[in-house]
Amino acid sequence: MATSSFAFFSLYSTTKCSSLRENDPNNNKSSVRVNGTSIHELSNFSIRTSPAYTSVASVIEDLMVEKNRQNIPTEKRMVDPFRQGLIVEGGVGYRQTITVRSYEIGPDKTATLETLFNLLQETALNHVWMSGLLGDGFGATHGMIKNNLIWVVTRMHVQIDEYPIWGEVVEIETWVGSSGKNGMRRDWLIRSHLSGHVFARATSTWVMMNQETRRLSKMPQEVRDEISPWYIEKQAIIEDVPEKIIKLDNKAKYVDSNLKPKRSDMDMNNHVNNVKYVKWMLETIPVSFLEEHQLGSIILEYRRECGSSDIVESICEPDEEQDDDDDSKEWPKRFTHLLQNKGEEKNEEIVRGRTTWNKKLPTCP
Amino acid sequence: MATSSFAFFSLYSTTKCSSLRENDPNNNKSSVRVNGTSIHELSNFSIRTSPAYTSVASVIEDLMVEKNRQNIPTEKRMVDPFRQGLIVEGGVGYRQTITVRSYEIGPDKTATLETLFNLLQETALNHVWMSGLLGDGFGATHGMIKNNLIWVVTRMHVQIDEYPIWGEVVEIETWVGSSGKNGMRRDWLIRSHLSGHVFARATSTWVMMNQETRRLSKMPQEVRDEISPWYIEKQAIIEDVPEKIIKLDNKAKYVDSNLKPKRSDMDMNNHVNNVKYVKWMLETIPVSFLEEHQLGSIILEYRRECGSSDIVESICEPDEEQDDDDDSKEWPKRFTHLLQNKGEEKNEEIVRGRTTWNKKLPTCP
Repeated sequence: MATSSFAFFSLYSTTKCSSLRENDPNNNKSSVRVNGTSIHELSNFSIRTSPAYTSVASVIEDLMVEKNRQNIPTEKRMVDPFRQGLIVEGGVGYRQTITVRSYEIGPDKTATLETLFNLLQETALNHVWMSGLLGDGFGATHGMIKNNLIWVVTRMHVQIDEYPIWGEVVEIETWVGSSGKNGMRRDWLIRSHLSGHVFARATSTWVMMNQETRRLSKMPQEVRDEISPWYIEKQAIIEDVPEKIIKLDNKAKYVDSNLKPKRSDMDMNNHVNNVKYVKWMLETIPVSFLEEHQLGSIILEYRRECGSSDIVESICEPDEEQDDDDDSKEWPKRFTHLLQNKGEEKNEEIVRGRTTWNKKLPTCP
Repeated sequence: MATSSFAFFSLYSTTKCSSLRENDPNNNKSSVRVNGTSIHELSNFSIRTSPAYTSVASVIEDLMVEKNRQNIPTEKRMVDPFRQGLIVEGGVGYRQTITVRSYEIGPDKTATLETLFNLLQETALNHVWMSGLLGDGFGATHGMIKNNLIWVVTRMHVQIDEYPIWGEVVEIETWVGSSGKNGMRRDWLIRSHLSGHVFARATSTWVMMNQETRRLSKMPQEVRDEISPWYIEKQAIIEDVPEKIIKLDNKAKYVDSNLKPKRSDMDMNNHVNNVKYVKWMLETIPVSFLEEHQLGSIILEYRRECGSSDIVESICEPDEEQDDDDDSKEWPKRFTHLLQNKGEEKNEEIVRGRTTWNKKLPTCP
């Protein structure tokens, strides 16, 4: 098994819109189309029409800088005592024990969706960290570096059956697998440490982008040879035909305009972080609904990253007219979401979303 | 040593403004004045003129509810393996090992101020947790519960010499001490696990409030008898005469008006959390300054809590006219801050602040 073949993928976005050279006429000449059996989004676009995702280019550069992260291991490690992490699944999966902290919970004293997204990112990074490859770049394999390729995330799907409570000890397991001809999947399971009961499941899809041309790329054979030994076939969420998310327009029921990223919304690459996207999406939903419902699943389709100067609009449409007073209706309820960048001439999609909601259980007296 | 005498103190605020009955004429009859040698803020006001702080009333109630926190210990514990916590200092202090996570860092790859505040809260709570008293209420001692008293925070002072980097393993130590006749102090030290080098120090002041009348209270002798065995005399920050923060008016140089708390800014008690205050304060400072400077210290004087419907104004005044282009000036630089609630008739102070800044070191190439 290759210990030098691993792929990184920050859930936080790291690409500047402007770096994608959308308006560069040379980009029109040879746009690469990437098709894959399970990366359904890719079958319908080329890099020219959907120019942006999430790259880790600047992170790779940054990791060359000293003092960015402490004690970067040069070899694969089986145990990380400080992070309470372990290599599992025959040496290719990763499991970490985490206790839900006081500031990671919401008004109902359970972990927030934001916390879960943060922990998915954290465990994915620690998985790569344990692989001993961080010295060679931020998760890109040797073959990827040679070919000037980076990972970009195109899709996330998170299903939450139960939110862990404050003080709960959870085990987060993560692993990677194949996704079509040119993609990679990363999955997660969040379980109760005590009972093994699964609280949440997540899956994500990643493709490769040429760091220079900013175009999507096929996966070179040498990269496939590096990565595939790390693949585990099991899937956290079985998606034979991933749900298609329609594009909303401004006639949608709920619109929050003029959203401006704050300095504290920026990640380490000075771009709006992924968690902020989710917040913007959910804050469009009326508070009265949020108070009585709990998010059961969220799907995000990433289209374009945005920077600190962008002005964002969050649009949201319920699946049907919902009457909050009518408890006889069936649960869960569903919403379609869109975040777009309000450009001077046209709007540019940042991310499409789909959320499913369950009625909250009444709080214990 | 009493194991049943401990005090809780969420750094997150938990009182509704409205619950303070400021307009209740009965409140004028017998307002309690609390004087203390080192709680300087208390010598100048009564609960009538400064009616609000931070209470933990609803938290106490909430903790009576099942499933709010897992495995609440009924007895003092010396070791918490999941949180990597230890009782130290002869059985009364607490130390926890924490690794800085990927989502707890800012653009410069070091822990954010927000992260440090979160970790102060977390370790304070875990200290109480380890004391075995959580089953009796959220940190209130038996004597406090008997007297219907809760803790409220009046002041925080955090000094940061160096920000721990991503992946850094830190030890956070926390303990309590006396503060004047009627107050309690909680201190923290954040150190490098590797070298023991101190990254940051913090101190905070807490007083008691009657849960029913919402008035500040003297510390009853029976509560003092419970708490004092936990006191440690050492101080993280020596403050013989704590710095007085002047009240700003609207003539200050930087004013951010119309700040509205979002749903995700609310803590478990549906009030704006402490970290959001700090964010509001710092976002008033021009980005160009923030990019070149690093916060070296912050003092917060809490006056009043605010809820989700309040409209907040963040005011900020530099100590002197600062020319960002003039590097010959001496560092650090200082700012005075005020967050106030824009009332219909008058503005009400939420928190006063004072920040000190150091020039950032240039990033490694």
